[in-house]
Amino acid sequence: MEFQIEVRHSRSEARVGRLRTPHGEIETPAFVAVATRATVKALSPADLRAVGVQVLIGNTYHLYLRPGPEVVAELGGLHGFSGWDGPWMTDSGGFQVFSLGAGKVHGVGKIASIFPGDDPPRPTGPSLVQLTEEGARFRSVVDGAWVFFSPEEVIRAQRLLGADIILPLDECTSPFHDRAYTQAAMERTHRWAERALQAFRETRGLGPNPDQVLFGIVQGGAYQDLRRRSARVIAQLGFPGFAIGGSLGRSKEDMLRVIEWTVAELPEEKPRHLLGIGGVEDILEAVRRGIDTFDCAAPTRMARNGSLLTPSEEGFRLNIKNARFRRDGRPIDEGCDCPTCRTHSRAFLHHLLRTGELAYFRLATLHNLRFMVRLLGAIRGAIVQGRPLAKEELRESLVAQEGRE
Amino acid sequence: MEFQIEVRHSRSEARVGRLRTPHGEIETPAFVAVATRATVKALSPADLRAVGVQVLIGNTYHLYLRPGPEVVAELGGLHGFSGWDGPWMTDSGGFQVFSLGAGKVHGVGKIASIFPGDDPPRPTGPSLVQLTEEGARFRSVVDGAWVFFSPEEVIRAQRLLGADIILPLDECTSPFHDRAYTQAAMERTHRWAERALQAFRETRGLGPNPDQVLFGIVQGGAYQDLRRRSARVIAQLGFPGFAIGGSLGRSKEDMLRVIEWTVAELPEEKPRHLLGIGGVEDILEAVRRGIDTFDCAAPTRMARNGSLLTPSEEGFRLNIKNARFRRDGRPIDEGCDCPTCRTHSRAFLHHLLRTGELAYFRLATLHNLRFMVRLLGAIRGAIVQGRPLAKEELRESLVAQEGRE
Repeated sequence: MEFQIEVRHSRSEARVGRLRTPHGEIETPAFVAVATRATVKALSPADLRAVGVQVLIGNTYHLYLRPGPEVVAELGGLHGFSGWDGPWMTDSGGFQVFSLGAGKVHGVGKIASIFPGDDPPRPTGPSLVQLTEEGARFRSVVDGAWVFFSPEEVIRAQRLLGADIILPLDECTSPFHDRAYTQAAMERTHRWAERALQAFRETRGLGPNPDQVLFGIVQGGAYQDLRRRSARVIAQLGFPGFAIGGSLGRSKEDMLRVIEWTVAELPEEKPRHLLGIGGVEDILEAVRRGIDTFDCAAPTRMARNGSLLTPSEEGFRLNIKNARFRRDGRPIDEGCDCPTCRTHSRAFLHHLLRTGELAYFRLATLHNLRFMVRLLGAIRGAIVQGRPLAKEELRESLVAQEGRE
Repeated sequence: MEFQIEVRHSRSEARVGRLRTPHGEIETPAFVAVATRATVKALSPADLRAVGVQVLIGNTYHLYLRPGPEVVAELGGLHGFSGWDGPWMTDSGGFQVFSLGAGKVHGVGKIASIFPGDDPPRPTGPSLVQLTEEGARFRSVVDGAWVFFSPEEVIRAQRLLGADIILPLDECTSPFHDRAYTQAAMERTHRWAERALQAFRETRGLGPNPDQVLFGIVQGGAYQDLRRRSARVIAQLGFPGFAIGGSLGRSKEDMLRVIEWTVAELPEEKPRHLLGIGGVEDILEAVRRGIDTFDCAAPTRMARNGSLLTPSEEGFRLNIKNARFRRDGRPIDEGCDCPTCRTHSRAFLHHLLRTGELAYFRLATLHNLRFMVRLLGAIRGAIVQGRPLAKEELRESLVAQEGRE
């Protein structure tokens, strides 16, 4: 893997770069499409190429349970198994340590911003995770059996899955964990990172992709000193790239501060991935602070729920379920060149979603991913041209693409 | 519309023909893909073109409820609304007279072959249909409101939907209706056919497709004299083509006899459609008896359930859910040129279906429809070359396509 910064933004920490992986190049800043179980929901690899997606991220926890890393390896790793032969990343299962553990007990997601005040909301269920120094014991969401994830086992599994960029097991803390817990978890994550690096060296040659690389994950919650310390410790371990994980605080502002503290301590010449974030404004603000890649299930999940991305609406989205679209013969977005907008009206999509037709999910997902691809393209354009990375500027540049079709 | 018979089979009543519609030609014998609500489930129009589908059939009853024929007309009729600009047919709602009425009370489908003996099985629910000379009153499956379908209203709706080939309202009887009821229903269907023709003439110019044609529907259950009489009466009304509807008896043998009686009374030079039948062997036997087109939801529904069509398996299908496919790196069918077989393994499809991934439904449907297209292509080839229209012969010709790829 090689990362090359090509243009630095004159007005912010943003940069345009090129990340060379064993399965192709990624122009950054880039959106990484979420393919938890080796498929972007409702799409095929040809669909992903058609809308310009550059890279996918699978999930080690989910693929471990089904179909199992050995099966994937036997069928050519994620590239051969899924038919997506471009760049792949895999997340380590560290997010599931949180989402199936403290996330349930604390009743929260990655950012607790929807909950005002300081009291944690109610639990959504008992923890399905037992954490020790050795690793994380998970209750399988498939059959209830216990599965043990050590840093070493997670590396072995990802060697077999064969993604181009893999991640070490970490503990993603909750916004409602206190400072002492967050610090202890961070220190354990650092010890796990060293064990992961060791296991990564020892398993060289295992699996279908000998040139895969291991990025480090920075933790430390929303505490400035912890985040800075975590970034320095992880950077010193010599990873070729970094991911920012864990609790990003209780608000968007917290999240942006966490990014600033972390990026300030990371080596400039290496790529920086922000895990699980992908709102239009979040991406914009994070790019301004030096983030290179993002993954997030929101654009594809929103598509399935009827929320379609377009620069011409307030909040960058419209709800296609709305009765006002019943007879609307226009495409979702006049300026969009995706297969859905080139062929179908809002009225037809409204009809498909209202009647529960399967065709809807693909057409909507194609559009939302194309929007993300165009958004990141517009962001790269603004960086290269030294234009402001501002919401209204970007909106105009996406709408202006209409004329160019 | 124009129908031209190009080659007659030397060994049976089969013929290869060409049906010219306002939106393109159909090479017959042809399989008509079912698009009940203006979409083939899980596919886009581009997908349908990619696998060689020639013609779709929508359903007047379902489209009447949602989004309504006025909305479809406003958006360019079925062609403009759906994005499928090739030939369209619409069924009249007559099948729903049966499936929501006597079909529920008698607890049966189109052919009662699964029930040995003469006693009707148990009801599956109360009838949602009230029939009078004037028409059929339906309880809407969407909101429970009553909807009235007269022969005239069904023509008006289909004028607005704008399919190339439309059908009159008929009463599809149950295999467990007695002779007296079947005869009375048939005679009413004949009166409705005359009213439909009258309404069709009176609505010329309404809707987006002025060149659409109205086929006649033959009823008469599994009674020889009734079927023959119905075919003669409907033929004399001067329809440019015919559909065989209604109860096809209590076994496959009954069905084939019904086809023979009916075809014998229909004018040779006009096209013949068999409503709702699409099993591999059924198609073969029906083509041998002079049927030109078929529609059936089974190939697409089977795909969604895991049943994938291939000439190399007994019964022409395999169940991809089966554990034996977990590590099977081969395509569904080595000889198939569909997008799914060109890219994906049985193991990947097995994984997608087992984990409930939406991408599965499209990939499976693409394959099964491509199989139907290839099957009908092989049937046309056998007719032209004077080869036997037999199951094993056809299986060999489909498997032999492997070498040609």
